[in-house]
Amino acid sequence: MYIGVIGAGRCDARTFDIAYEVGKLVAQRGAILVCGGLGGVMEAACKGAKSKAGLTLGILPSEDRKQANPYVDVAVPTDLGEARNALVVRAADVLIAVGGEFGTLSEIALALKIGKPVVGIGTWELAKRGRPIEAILVAKDPHEAVERAFQAFLKS
Amino acid sequence: MYIGVIGAGRCDARTFDIAYEVGKLVAQRGAILVCGGLGGVMEAACKGAKSKAGLTLGILPSEDRKQANPYVDVAVPTDLGEARNALVVRAADVLIAVGGEFGTLSEIALALKIGKPVVGIGTWELAKRGRPIEAILVAKDPHEAVERAFQAFLKS
Amino acid sequence: MYIGVIGAGRCDARTFDIAYEVGKLVAQRGAILVCGGLGGVMEAACKGAKSKAGLTLGILPSEDRKQANPYVDVAVPTDLGEARNALVVRAADVLIAVGGEFGTLSEIALALKIGKPVVGIGTWELAKRGRPIEAILVAKDPHEAVERAFQAFLKS
Amino acid sequence: MYIGVIGAGRCDARTFDIAYEVGKLVAQRGAILVCGGLGGVMEAACKGAKSKAGLTLGILPSEDRKQANPYVDVAVPTDLGEARNALVVRAADVLIAVGGEFGTLSEIALALKIGKPVVGIGTWELAKRGRPIEAILVAKDPHEAVERAFQAFLKS
Repeated sequence: MYIGVIGAGRCDARTFDIAYEVGKLVAQRGAILVCGGLGGVMEAACKGAKSKAGLTLGILPSEDRKQANPYVDVAVPTDLGEARNALVVRAADVLIAVGGEFGTLSEIALALKIGKPVVGIGTWELAKRGRPIEAILVAKDPHEAVERAFQAFLKS
Repeated sequence: MYIGVIGAGRCDARTFDIAYEVGKLVAQRGAILVCGGLGGVMEAACKGAKSKAGLTLGILPSEDRKQANPYVDVAVPTDLGEARNALVVRAADVLIAVGGEFGTLSEIALALKIGKPVVGIGTWELAKRGRPIEAILVAKDPHEAVERAFQAFLKS
Repeated sequence: MYIGVIGAGRCDARTFDIAYEVGKLVAQRGAILVCGGLGGVMEAACKGAKSKAGLTLGILPSEDRKQANPYVDVAVPTDLGEARNALVVRAADVLIAVGGEFGTLSEIALALKIGKPVVGIGTWELAKRGRPIEAILVAKDPHEAVERAFQAFLKS
Repeated sequence: MYIGVIGAGRCDARTFDIAYEVGKLVAQRGAILVCGGLGGVMEAACKGAKSKAGLTLGILPSEDRKQANPYVDVAVPTDLGEARNALVVRAADVLIAVGGEFGTLSEIALALKIGKPVVGIGTWELAKRGRPIEAILVAKDPHEAVERAFQAFLKS
């Protein structure tokens, strides 16, 4: 099983801690961690996964493998720019969004478009014409997020 | 100038009329209309553009050019699936979202990520932690949408 | 019908003349000319097509539309780097290679892989284990090249 | 270091043995093996790498991870079709082509285009206007191939 952890390339300490914990739990439960390979949430999740000897995959926007954070085991430079977001989504069975900016939103949307479950902690809230669209599975903490991700995968 | 009109592949009659009008105004003002090439909002916008002899470009998800709606002048089959959304965004200078589902949301997010202006009519509303994120330029009708799109392009 | 004309971004005067003539004949016969949008063979073919009021499509490797040569009507910036070669191939029904370097060779190979006809003038010669692989339809001049391209399209 | 092993999805027993040996040597020397993730040469190389506990990365053309051969550790479904060939090239520091059909040729050409070394065993021979183009580093057996790949990487 491959769990994608998505979020911004820069983040505050609290968000970093959450993403670290998510990565740790993903690895503990034996899943491969997929991410965009850069800093911030991506680095935190990879660092957490490595603390439990998990395997981490980073799909990079540039052609330069050195852009990968130090906790990426398998770094895939794509030179596709933000178009690589579609590959992060494709490579994951389920996604967990931690915070996140517009890049993360694009990944959430692509995942929902192709029917992949998305769990969110403190991430985007979606609405149309004043009505909330509750397509993201909201979790209050890393444990709930990883638990919901595994449940969603088993159901899909 | 290239204006992207984005929205769902199926839509109700009201949304179709709005997208048609947007396409017509885009062509009247001399811009090339870019879209995902399929039905619904994309077809409406192309049909509107052709009513004023505009030029229409459709960037298709499949490898089959026949998927293009009949109002597409230049049909580009990509076989990239939803990853082609990044190409619609790249190919446009400004985007106008009319309604839209998750695919449209991914295009809005990618555009905002790379700093391209997005105008919206009846489209997604974004928020984080209970606070609205007002990154989309809201328009109430096709005239205002196209006007705001041209203004945003000239400023960018 | 969409004919792709592929070749290097820089070329000598003789190759330029051949590509110009190919583009002219493509337009004369009513096909849309697809290319990578840059200089050299691509510019020559577009210039030839415009001399007969043809429509030209340039699929660019960068995100900058200004990279397109001045004879491109519809310029599609992709920001995919050389990965855009696959899109040039997908967008064309048949390809005509005029001379060409490694980028052109990648397009020839991708086209042959997915079963699209490739006509060649002064382009790559392929062999394996000392035996020529005659997959490219060889033409001695622009007229023969465009004629063979149309024939191949009608048969495919 | 990441070594790409490229070749056809189906191959004869002799080619399989060569690719197996290449994969084994790549893993023995501590490099990560990158490939297109499918059968034939790709499967042989992965199987060889796993015989020495190497790490294998498969970048798949489809969206279905199950297409990966059983010796792929990290399977990346892309849904990009043959456009994923550019990603195999990007993900590798050096490529070793074993035999190969048109897909392999496209990878060889893309690698040469962006300046990545390509070593070949029994693979394509290139020529233009009757003159061989000796851009591929020819090796007579797996040992020489892997040796030349490492040398080329160290020089690059």
